[in-house]
Amino acid sequence: MDVPLGYLFRDLDDDQLKRIAAVAREVAMENGQEICREGEEAKELYILKAGAVELMTRVEDDVELPISILREPGDIFGAGVLVAPYLYSVTARCAGTGFLFSIERSAMQKLMTEDRDLGCIIMTNLAAHYLGRLKESRREIKIHFSTLLRSYR
Amino acid sequence: MDVPLGYLFRDLDDDQLKRIAAVAREVAMENGQEICREGEEAKELYILKAGAVELMTRVEDDVELPISILREPGDIFGAGVLVAPYLYSVTARCAGTGFLFSIERSAMQKLMTEDRDLGCIIMTNLAAHYLGRLKESRREIKIHFSTLLRSYR
Repeated sequence: MDVPLGYLFRDLDDDQLKRIAAVAREVAMENGQEICREGEEAKELYILKAGAVELMTRVEDDVELPISILREPGDIFGAGVLVAPYLYSVTARCAGTGFLFSIERSAMQKLMTEDRDLGCIIMTNLAAHYLGRLKESRREIKIHFSTLLRSYR
Repeated sequence: MDVPLGYLFRDLDDDQLKRIAAVAREVAMENGQEICREGEEAKELYILKAGAVELMTRVEDDVELPISILREPGDIFGAGVLVAPYLYSVTARCAGTGFLFSIERSAMQKLMTEDRDLGCIIMTNLAAHYLGRLKESRREIKIHFSTLLRSYR
């Protein structure tokens, strides 16, 4: 099975990628379907095969804030399976039909424990990804702050 | 040398901690001293021994936004040494006198390559840390957003 390569699997060798593909399961997704929900236990890692997925975060009971839309095959969400306490940090919803690969948390953990090199590469990629997101998020805060500053000047 | 344990070194065993302490160098810091600057090449990882360090990010040429103040022995900054392209993501400045431990990037990389288990644990701790910061940062954006929402209702 050909699992597309997202940021999380960068720098892995062919043999390592084969072992990951071997534990991935293909799932069809329907338009509007909620795939995972913010705050719930992270049981599966998801890799986009085709289609689009919206990532959202809850602001108030009835208000959600969009975080990003994933469209590239290989885009990943549900990385909460890799970090204790294993919770989804966003809600993911399909925008249009498409296909995902999903990998169970226990299968990921087994691969990463058996091959520490693979584990180290994946966690390095994940840390780099979160750092990128953190910088984006800080840029957004700076924009709010700059706007506030100007309104007081 | 007794290097205090921050989040980055959690779950390492005594032998691994000893190897880290062996490459750490103690440095005195002066009040107001800039230790590292946002956007510059990350050459050293810093561990707080005593005192306090302010982390800031630049908003405009003459305006900085505080991100956090580190006060706990073992608090870490300069983790950009662990993630390509190896840049400091914040500016760190001493608030009061104190002491730091610093570890050169090449020494960290050597330890992490020679002991993949150590590397994997450190990168897992770092990913968890960045995820925590990302959640905090998103909470801040939500507050701005909620305030905006209320002003339009």
